[in-house]
Amino acid sequence: MTTQSARRQLTPVPFTDVRLGDPFWAPRQEINRTVTIPHMYRMLVDTGRIGAFDLDFSRELPAPIVLIFGDSDPAKWLEAAAYALATQPDPELHKLVDEVADKIISAQQPDGYLNTHFTAIQPDMRWKNLRDWHEMYCAGHLMEAAVAHHQATGERKLLDALARYSDYIAATFGREPGKRRGYGGHPEIELALVRLYHATGDERHLTLSKYLVEERGQSDPHYYDVEVVARGEDPAKFWARSYEYCQAHAPIREQTKVVGHAVRAMYLMCGVADLAHEYDDPSLLEACERLWGNLVHQRMYLTGGIGPSRHNEGFTTDYDLPDESAYAETCASIALVMWNQRLLQFRGEGKYADIIEQTLYNGFISGLALDGKHFFYVNPLASAGTHHRTPWFVCPCCPPNVGRILASLGDYLYSTGPNDLWVHFYAQNSASIAVAGSPVQVQLTSNYPWDGEVRIELTPETARAFAVHLRIPGWCQQWQIRINGASVDADAPVNGYVTVERTWQPGDVVELSLGMSVQIVWAHPAVRQMQGRLAVQRGPIVYCVEGVDQPGVENLDRIALDPEQVRNFSVEHRADLLGGVTLLRGTGILVADDDWDSATLYRRDRPSATGSIPVTAVPYCVWDNRAAGEMRVWFRAA
Amino acid sequence: MTTQSARRQLTPVPFTDVRLGDPFWAPRQEINRTVTIPHMYRMLVDTGRIGAFDLDFSRELPAPIVLIFGDSDPAKWLEAAAYALATQPDPELHKLVDEVADKIISAQQPDGYLNTHFTAIQPDMRWKNLRDWHEMYCAGHLMEAAVAHHQATGERKLLDALARYSDYIAATFGREPGKRRGYGGHPEIELALVRLYHATGDERHLTLSKYLVEERGQSDPHYYDVEVVARGEDPAKFWARSYEYCQAHAPIREQTKVVGHAVRAMYLMCGVADLAHEYDDPSLLEACERLWGNLVHQRMYLTGGIGPSRHNEGFTTDYDLPDESAYAETCASIALVMWNQRLLQFRGEGKYADIIEQTLYNGFISGLALDGKHFFYVNPLASAGTHHRTPWFVCPCCPPNVGRILASLGDYLYSTGPNDLWVHFYAQNSASIAVAGSPVQVQLTSNYPWDGEVRIELTPETARAFAVHLRIPGWCQQWQIRINGASVDADAPVNGYVTVERTWQPGDVVELSLGMSVQIVWAHPAVRQMQGRLAVQRGPIVYCVEGVDQPGVENLDRIALDPEQVRNFSVEHRADLLGGVTLLRGTGILVADDDWDSATLYRRDRPSATGSIPVTAVPYCVWDNRAAGEMRVWFRAA
Repeated sequence: MTTQSARRQLTPVPFTDVRLGDPFWAPRQEINRTVTIPHMYRMLVDTGRIGAFDLDFSRELPAPIVLIFGDSDPAKWLEAAAYALATQPDPELHKLVDEVADKIISAQQPDGYLNTHFTAIQPDMRWKNLRDWHEMYCAGHLMEAAVAHHQATGERKLLDALARYSDYIAATFGREPGKRRGYGGHPEIELALVRLYHATGDERHLTLSKYLVEERGQSDPHYYDVEVVARGEDPAKFWARSYEYCQAHAPIREQTKVVGHAVRAMYLMCGVADLAHEYDDPSLLEACERLWGNLVHQRMYLTGGIGPSRHNEGFTTDYDLPDESAYAETCASIALVMWNQRLLQFRGEGKYADIIEQTLYNGFISGLALDGKHFFYVNPLASAGTHHRTPWFVCPCCPPNVGRILASLGDYLYSTGPNDLWVHFYAQNSASIAVAGSPVQVQLTSNYPWDGEVRIELTPETARAFAVHLRIPGWCQQWQIRINGASVDADAPVNGYVTVERTWQPGDVVELSLGMSVQIVWAHPAVRQMQGRLAVQRGPIVYCVEGVDQPGVENLDRIALDPEQVRNFSVEHRADLLGGVTLLRGTGILVADDDWDSATLYRRDRPSATGSIPVTAVPYCVWDNRAAGEMRVWFRAA
Repeated sequence: MTTQSARRQLTPVPFTDVRLGDPFWAPRQEINRTVTIPHMYRMLVDTGRIGAFDLDFSRELPAPIVLIFGDSDPAKWLEAAAYALATQPDPELHKLVDEVADKIISAQQPDGYLNTHFTAIQPDMRWKNLRDWHEMYCAGHLMEAAVAHHQATGERKLLDALARYSDYIAATFGREPGKRRGYGGHPEIELALVRLYHATGDERHLTLSKYLVEERGQSDPHYYDVEVVARGEDPAKFWARSYEYCQAHAPIREQTKVVGHAVRAMYLMCGVADLAHEYDDPSLLEACERLWGNLVHQRMYLTGGIGPSRHNEGFTTDYDLPDESAYAETCASIALVMWNQRLLQFRGEGKYADIIEQTLYNGFISGLALDGKHFFYVNPLASAGTHHRTPWFVCPCCPPNVGRILASLGDYLYSTGPNDLWVHFYAQNSASIAVAGSPVQVQLTSNYPWDGEVRIELTPETARAFAVHLRIPGWCQQWQIRINGASVDADAPVNGYVTVERTWQPGDVVELSLGMSVQIVWAHPAVRQMQGRLAVQRGPIVYCVEGVDQPGVENLDRIALDPEQVRNFSVEHRADLLGGVTLLRGTGILVADDDWDSATLYRRDRPSATGSIPVTAVPYCVWDNRAAGEMRVWFRAA
């Protein structure tokens, strides 16, 4: 596709204008506010992450030096807490947020520098290892926290502090004479600076972001080689072997495959997408589209998990998507959502919304237990029964990242255009949306994602004409629209959206009926691990089978599924189970074992696979919330 | 089975009496002697393992301290070289063997202690960490080397040195007052001491072995807890979490599952089997049989690989046998062979010979490249194409272990009983075997393992009566015996052996015809990873498919095999390929991709799996000797 303009034609409606009331997200948002955010605060205090801002110079130097990016965790917590505060006043939380903001500010150095480790522990190593030591990554998260804090409280103190830090970084790094041509090994600051620019109006932050994106991956010499040599080390001894790991192997416009550390790749691409818009730069948008194609067509799990390898927390080769050993870090799915949210706003293409939806309902929210205080860092698509959520991690990047996305989830539902309202997702909500400058009350009623019947009541202040774009999800094969009860003979979706243009009267009702049958999914023949296997999906929900539902089957791969039988699985909503879920139930085929004994491991006669067994499938995202056991998404096809 | 006596009724015929001339092992023995042993010597010199015996006290202390068990590698090399020497005089190798023996002896301390690391590098840590620091393991390998050196050269100097070391260890450790109740975390010395006892006739070595086996796993207090506390450390912080890793979690007679580090487990069990015989102790033999059952019936790969997990280099849970992530260390398969060789001698039960054969022809010899100088440490049953043999390892335990087994492979072919000759394997060879004290010349002619036709010419000095026990392999479903051309109506095998008792005339010929059809193997329904899959075997050879033979198929799991088609695979011997192998060729079913495009990763329509493809299977043991690529043993069954 030839890109004509790289300006975004859509603007997301902020979460502060949207109130979720659906059975899936609204309870999770509430648990996030009341359980997850307080739990994370305690963990951050207990592990010294918040106390670090006290800059106690007597702290011991850990050996080996690991996890020197601890400032990012309180930053993400602060961001999550500020979002929660922005939708629901809470004086106690407000006080805590303010205390943490003050603590962060107190650690800022006179020159603007703000990093606890390289102030209190290793001051002589400041900016000495941009490749590995995460100073810019931490700065980025602090900037995002500052923007969120400002938005939630209206106070400028943290925002001003981080603007000063940005100015100090811009004075240190750049292409101008006297500056160093460095950039951080873990992208994040690039997208944060764009947010800082919008919050402050100061274009210098945007300019810095542009520099950091465009300098990245330049060689001759490569900045990371230069700084390694300056430290007296050998560039050839970099453990990850390639600067792909740091997204610094090639300039962004020259990249053709999505490689390296998945979170780093996605955060960088968020910044790239932002800059494409800000500078109306088609070459950056083309880079996004090229890498998005490689990611989504060759390197993404069905759940929206990305990055199969534990080794580099990231990408390997095309079509390498093993299920049981999948890394699929929660943070990577989050960053994937953030990137697609940015891409969606350019031209309102539903393929991006499809990825957001697929990821949010599956590989993102699997990261959080129903109790709100246990987390997956790694989200495999099969488990022998030993993979469980834990209350915290040595590297606790995922929990506060889940917290900030959940608290701001309203961001993803709507966008507006010049005289357009875009409806991306159908979770029940009420919203007040300015369309062409004038407010429209939107009341969306649904039982999504368990049901495809959606009712949208639109109430402009007075009758007026504008376009409503309704997303027809990629998974949906049959749909129908009614307006005020009358069927509409709508055109086929364009780029995944059906457009209804009319003069809307207050109280007009659009009914959208999305067919939600049980679907069978097959993987491309080049995916090694999934041949002869099928997965089961209904609406946006990917299903799995858990050992706890299949008593007596010590090995879930004994179960094969016949596609015909799967299509006839019964759909059963259970409000009492797993926070309220829709189950799929039916019959599978079981490898029989009545003619085996425990003294025969291998034999020449085929097991008579004629047994049948009742099968219960639950949404993948809620697995491991009951008794520990096996889990499997991809089943052998009979 | 009730054990009545725990004395061995069979005695293996030593490799020095057997000369292999078969197409499979004889060339590998020759390459071992002419390539592998010199290659290993160079690597040991280059990596400082042999120089370590110079006890250079100025060597820097490595940090962290790893691989402090370096003495074991030259020891195993010396053992391999001595075996090679014992069958083929070689003045140059003899000189080298002698130099290494002298070097080892030169490092012995006045008190008898002999360990380079804890003499030259960390003398203050001698015997301070039996759990982790491998002093007794190294001692064991040095003892085995000394026995081999004595047998090959007739010289006693190294044997005497190691006998002195044994005496020093016996004076330090034991249940007597004033001694410490320790034992090594990596078993090996237990079996070595029994060999030292036989070579010297000194029963003190046997007594020490018995102490080390029986003290192991005693608690209240546990010796490893005591020594950890003495070092000022915390027993709860042991990385492996359980003393199962060191085979020290429970006394041997109380163990019911084979657990922990696979090589440690197998070496220990060799010692246990030896002591069962030496002390006529049925309780030790029962322990062997119990753990053997668990290993072979629940925890062994089809290739004779054992220990699926990289984490502990060992065992996990029953039926956990993933193919691609299989660890299956070469050393573990070697130790499995050693243990089964010991068990086979008790009562001549073919089930033990079956395991030896299955392991030698598959998971053992896969460890060595055809060029004799590249090695697998890890022997998975499937590979994405990134697993390759290398010339050496940071921990080079496997190469010299392969070398010593290959050089002494004749050990496994025959045993004798009171008036019995046992024939376990049918590799072509000529042997001179003392049956009831009188020599019998044996000329075995075959093309084993490629062909099941075996001709055995027996030539006693004069006509005499004795029993010949011929093994009918577990994989063999049809067999026939002829004597001097006449069919024999033999009884069904007892414990896997057919017995022919007669008065043998010089030149009598036994012909054994073992049906060698293409067989399909299925795994127990509890094996998670293998359901709906089949493997292909012919005779003792397990087959695999390599990417290099399936051009254009980027993913071998696209191929499914129909059992009926597999049974009709053609059998084709190719003398020019892979050192001479028998291939299996036929037709498989291919997941078609002509209706997929590169922009679709998942879809709702089943791939039309109607394509067919020519399939070539090669012996598993020779994979990765051609162009790098994928490999797979277990195929989806159509």
